[in-house]
Amino acid sequence: MEDVKVEIKEVQDGSVITPQGFRVAGVHTGVKRKRNDLGIVYSEIPAKAAAVYTLNQIQAAPITVTKESITKEQTIQAVVVNSGNANACTGEQGLRDAYEMRKKTAEKFLIPEHYVSVASTGIIGLEMPMDNIMQGIEKINVGKTAEDASNFEESILTTDTFNKSACFEAEMGGKKVTIGGAAKGSGMIKPNMATMLGFITTDIAIEADALQKALKIAVDETFNCITVDGDTSTNDMVLVLANGQAKNDVVTEDHAEWPTFVALLTKTCEQLAKQIARDGEGATKLIEVEVDGAKTEEDAKKIAKTIVGSSLVKTAVYGADANWGRIIAAVGYSGVEINPETIDISLGSLQLLKQSEPVAFSEEEATNYLENDEVKITVHLHDGEASGKAWGCDLTYDYVRINASYRS
Amino acid sequence: MEDVKVEIKEVQDGSVITPQGFRVAGVHTGVKRKRNDLGIVYSEIPAKAAAVYTLNQIQAAPITVTKESITKEQTIQAVVVNSGNANACTGEQGLRDAYEMRKKTAEKFLIPEHYVSVASTGIIGLEMPMDNIMQGIEKINVGKTAEDASNFEESILTTDTFNKSACFEAEMGGKKVTIGGAAKGSGMIKPNMATMLGFITTDIAIEADALQKALKIAVDETFNCITVDGDTSTNDMVLVLANGQAKNDVVTEDHAEWPTFVALLTKTCEQLAKQIARDGEGATKLIEVEVDGAKTEEDAKKIAKTIVGSSLVKTAVYGADANWGRIIAAVGYSGVEINPETIDISLGSLQLLKQSEPVAFSEEEATNYLENDEVKITVHLHDGEASGKAWGCDLTYDYVRINASYRS
Repeated sequence: MEDVKVEIKEVQDGSVITPQGFRVAGVHTGVKRKRNDLGIVYSEIPAKAAAVYTLNQIQAAPITVTKESITKEQTIQAVVVNSGNANACTGEQGLRDAYEMRKKTAEKFLIPEHYVSVASTGIIGLEMPMDNIMQGIEKINVGKTAEDASNFEESILTTDTFNKSACFEAEMGGKKVTIGGAAKGSGMIKPNMATMLGFITTDIAIEADALQKALKIAVDETFNCITVDGDTSTNDMVLVLANGQAKNDVVTEDHAEWPTFVALLTKTCEQLAKQIARDGEGATKLIEVEVDGAKTEEDAKKIAKTIVGSSLVKTAVYGADANWGRIIAAVGYSGVEINPETIDISLGSLQLLKQSEPVAFSEEEATNYLENDEVKITVHLHDGEASGKAWGCDLTYDYVRINASYRS
Repeated sequence: MEDVKVEIKEVQDGSVITPQGFRVAGVHTGVKRKRNDLGIVYSEIPAKAAAVYTLNQIQAAPITVTKESITKEQTIQAVVVNSGNANACTGEQGLRDAYEMRKKTAEKFLIPEHYVSVASTGIIGLEMPMDNIMQGIEKINVGKTAEDASNFEESILTTDTFNKSACFEAEMGGKKVTIGGAAKGSGMIKPNMATMLGFITTDIAIEADALQKALKIAVDETFNCITVDGDTSTNDMVLVLANGQAKNDVVTEDHAEWPTFVALLTKTCEQLAKQIARDGEGATKLIEVEVDGAKTEEDAKKIAKTIVGSSLVKTAVYGADANWGRIIAAVGYSGVEINPETIDISLGSLQLLKQSEPVAFSEEEATNYLENDEVKITVHLHDGEASGKAWGCDLTYDYVRINASYRS
């Protein structure tokens, strides 16, 4: 990420409807037992759209349909999303259902079908309860209140325990540009297409190709650097809609404001990614790993992801055990060539390892630190100048409980 | 593994001392609280030796010392191993301690130092309690009783819950050749140098290079196909000693008996590997995954390992939930190119998925099957002729409990 001079301001209580010209809603249709399970994001005018998708080769029907919609004109006006059923491994019927959801949404808003994108999350391999979904699309009313935003945020969740949102703004050429986001995460979250759903709205005026490129950069630094359990889902996507209502000069890759927008988008994605990591299934703690002194940023990120993905590190953090042996072991099997003799490891500001050998430290201080709900592990390789970060969560009894009984 | 016509017989109650000319022992020195923590394998005459080691770039001191010993003459007569302390990340002092263990053992048996190999397993980064270790080496008496074997098997364990042994025999050119093994596993077990300790003894007469090659083949099919938590340790090795006491024709790679020996060794390693998988930390079930219809054996093994390594699959098996969605998702993110439309999945003899679409099956039957202590998942890709297997275990509350408090 490039250094940006412009001030990026977090918007307190901001959300996907804070940028101009967006409306959302979330309702309960009965796919899930109690929580909202159908949501819509609507832009008052057609918006430039960009998306990144799961790298899993088994891709759910809605992914196919959304790809088709976006490819056509890089323009989306409405997003329909359901939770509770992933519409994955559902064959021809599943594809028909996803197209049906798209068509129904297009009819509701009197827009072309390919202006609609579709997303689903939930259980794999069950036929879509289309009656519920279709009635839900019919009755849902998009709006601009905080309650609408919160209803939408809830409607995309599965085993998540809280709504996830972010909102930032910056001035770009005398105009205020705002960006908001909502996301769901929890299980099956891992690097390489952070496996989750993310919906980002912005009123910036930007070219579609520039938007796609910015999204790729932002996702790579954020959603692709989180892990909950190392599994990669069949359904996941991050979608950004930019409707131009901020009336700024249209941003391209060569535009002076391009780095500002990339920073804005990255900031939004990072905020959402960290909320996802913190809310990993059963998690009690957010773990941030920073790796410094690597040969390349890619190496640094790869090591950071390996550490934050290690079941042994995750259980040690859960147990508030300053077990640096598991951290250095993860460095060693990350697949990145390192110098095994020059590794420093710190927990918060407490150094545990210096030049690959133990430092005397207060176990009590370490345990106290590990009882925080945010834990930072820093590794210095002394092998180069590059840095990278990754985020994850601890591995707890509740992860096992939740996942030993998800279908039932 | 090549097809072998010769009959390979399992030796009931056999162990590392069943092959001729081996003696072992295990004692308690106080490194661990109660269980034996120091063991020795001794061959009455110098034995040809081969070993494979952890691929972790952070390698413990005993690995360095054993490599040096074996490289010199490919001959080992005694192996000294301790549990409770891994002697890893212990710097110069750790290396001195490992050499000291080697020297003391050589003096005990009046053999050259480079005829001794050293292995350690346990906590990383603690200085070796050399007083205990040295006194242990002094007092230990190797022998040939079942009790000696059991004492040795116990002395190498860490969080393992049972001793692991295997023993097979076959006739080779009119002579009976026997092979025995002991192993430890539990945490930090994962593909690519199955991270564990394995000690294999055999009375075959074989050239050292042929022995090394056979071990590589056998480990690749067995120890490298098990996973408990995806972490790779700093300490692990599989060592085989062949002392020639069976008086068979010396086996080389070109010898007619070579495939028989490879099969014997593979069988022994597989037996040990499966015991390790079954005894994964907190495990209640052994999971075997077989992948058929792949383009190559490597692809098949990679997919099998991905499935058996998935935290979501492991928790589903623990919860007796026939969640094939997680299995097919793992196939999709394994990194192997597959045809997403032609995948069959079975649980035992119960088919769950055909051509990537759900088959109606009895949930009750599936749940009953999943309550067995051995669960077999079969995936057919219909994309080639190759097959591969991997082994692992379920992910349980106890895994979290054990690893949230291992150091303390």
